Amino acid sequence: MTHTMDGVISYVISIFTCLDSPAIQENRVTTVQCLSGTGSLRVGGEFLARHYHQRTIYIPQPTWGNHPKVFTLAGLSVKTFRYYDPVTRGLNFQGLLEDLRSAPSGAIVLLHACAHNPTGVDPTPQQWEQIRQLMRSKALLPFFDSAYQGFASGNLDADAHSVRLFVGDGGECLIAQSYAKNMGLYGERVGALSIVCKSADVASRVESQLKLVIRPMYSNPPIHGASIVATILKDRNMYQEWIIELKAMADRIINMRHQLFDALRSRGTPGDWSHIIKQIGMFTFTGLNSEQVAFMTKEYHIYMTSDGRISMAGLSSRTVPHLVEAIHAAVTRLV
Amino acid sequence: MTHTMDGVISYVISIFTCLDSPAIQENRVTTVQCLSGTGSLRVGGEFLARHYHQRTIYIPQPTWGNHPKVFTLAGLSVKTFRYYDPVTRGLNFQGLLEDLRSAPSGAIVLLHACAHNPTGVDPTPQQWEQIRQLMRSKALLPFFDSAYQGFASGNLDADAHSVRLFVGDGGECLIAQSYAKNMGLYGERVGALSIVCKSADVASRVESQLKLVIRPMYSNPPIHGASIVATILKDRNMYQEWIIELKAMADRIINMRHQLFDALRSRGTPGDWSHIIKQIGMFTFTGLNSEQVAFMTKEYHIYMTSDGRISMAGLSSRTVPHLVEAIHAAVTRLV
Repeated sequence: MTHTMDGVISYVISIFTCLDSPAIQENRVTTVQCLSGTGSLRVGGEFLARHYHQRTIYIPQPTWGNHPKVFTLAGLSVKTFRYYDPVTRGLNFQGLLEDLRSAPSGAIVLLHACAHNPTGVDPTPQQWEQIRQLMRSKALLPFFDSAYQGFASGNLDADAHSVRLFVGDGGECLIAQSYAKNMGLYGERVGALSIVCKSADVASRVESQLKLVIRPMYSNPPIHGASIVATILKDRNMYQEWIIELKAMADRIINMRHQLFDALRSRGTPGDWSHIIKQIGMFTFTGLNSEQVAFMTKEYHIYMTSDGRISMAGLSSRTVPHLVEAIHAAVTRLV
Repeated sequence: MTHTMDGVISYVISIFTCLDSPAIQENRVTTVQCLSGTGSLRVGGEFLARHYHQRTIYIPQPTWGNHPKVFTLAGLSVKTFRYYDPVTRGLNFQGLLEDLRSAPSGAIVLLHACAHNPTGVDPTPQQWEQIRQLMRSKALLPFFDSAYQGFASGNLDADAHSVRLFVGDGGECLIAQSYAKNMGLYGERVGALSIVCKSADVASRVESQLKLVIRPMYSNPPIHGASIVATILKDRNMYQEWIIELKAMADRIINMRHQLFDALRSRGTPGDWSHIIKQIGMFTFTGLNSEQVAFMTKEYHIYMTSDGRISMAGLSSRTVPHLVEAIHAAVTRLV
């Protein structure tokens, strides 16, 4: 870990592993400060392209638009696995299992730790366990993108469930942590890449190789945002304050989901809108088509991505009625 | 330019071009905020590897240790040109001209804008003009690493002479600017890559391609250090204060060069030490060999790189006598 966050590595790691995790106690985790989520993914990608025996990474279909570019430019070959089912607006679990089952042994698999972007659809704990068993049986390497920990459910532990399942079995994995959302530090570009290794010896060799990826990219990460993160993680009172604020932010988003769902039901808007309360995190994948989205933009000045993804963080009690009117008009006029 | 520095692009550019430069007035310069010098060089290197017709970059021999790695990983092929003459402890100007003359047309050439690292040896204004003529006649593309502007002579204009010569002739060039030394912002990783183009149209297309290099590397640059730079550049009083402090820093280093040179002469230390006052910037390439360096470390607890490079910024009036004793002992005992 380069400078600023040196003193808080164990805290950084504990957020996704638990402080009493054997991985920490056995010094099997190497962590380097990176430039938020994107920077952590890129450094991890370049490290894997240079040193890992398999150069193919499987990413969910759909996924965050930047993922394919980050990994392609890092030198990996990008393939997709089925993830979202437009009919149920939920997980295509059978498709996911089939695609991972037919991936070559040792391939890298990108997983969203929680609050899948853009769909808001996450596997259940039971499904995560099945994914873990399948991946470990085929020696597939998990690379977690953890951009919303604590921001999804309001609980850091609950949102780390998937990562902890994989760290807990003693196998290898990578975790790209972003503090952009859960600490509100978008502009400071603070994040961390952690690689859980099989032994302390491997971890220390991995760390020196990670430094060789970082040095010719930007030499060192910026200090300011990392100082903020380190200060909060080291101080028991600030940490508690952070946890409380995090829960307030997450609860507000969850509350907005219920307000929107209830209002659509009261309005009698055609369709099953239960995915709004089932989906997790900042985004709702509404299921509105691009024609309906364009209609809402033109007639109601509501702006969202053309795939129908809305940010729940941008919604308030005051604006729910206007959004409901717009959705109602869109789905009744344009089927 | 991404967010923070948007409001000060013309100031950023003017530092190396002059505010009334045609390049600025004709909107032919595109500038993006990057992670200090290294980050600017890497983004520029990746851009060239992807879009420029020649993939070979010539770097001086010797040069900053990180240069070959930055450009190799960016996807360029690295070759060297002769630069330093160990006999004169000065510039090998004939070797430099010969090597650039035999470079393939269109090749990229890395030039240190001022205060060459590690040698402290810069071409004279007349030599720069000869280099410019040769490079333009062969369509060699200049890529300036500007890490010490204002820190070398104490004057931003004087230290920009080489860059302004090339910008002034209307041709293309790249400039990687670091604010690590001249604004004391090492830890904040703030710098800028500027590309001087032939037209405003090309510049705007170059900018959109630069964003496509940055987005999958770290999405956006960090805000804090850039806010400091922008604040200083926008405020006339702060800018003046900065200029004065910059000159004080540079003058102290120049003064240390004279104190060290005078003390070696007074002590009667064998050898011609005039290179100490001829060399420019933070470093002195002493000419001490690795055996002498090891002796000084062992007997006098003086630590420097094994190639004999010392940082003048680390020297003070109080420590000059001890250093002179050590150098004297080293060169008289180990020839």
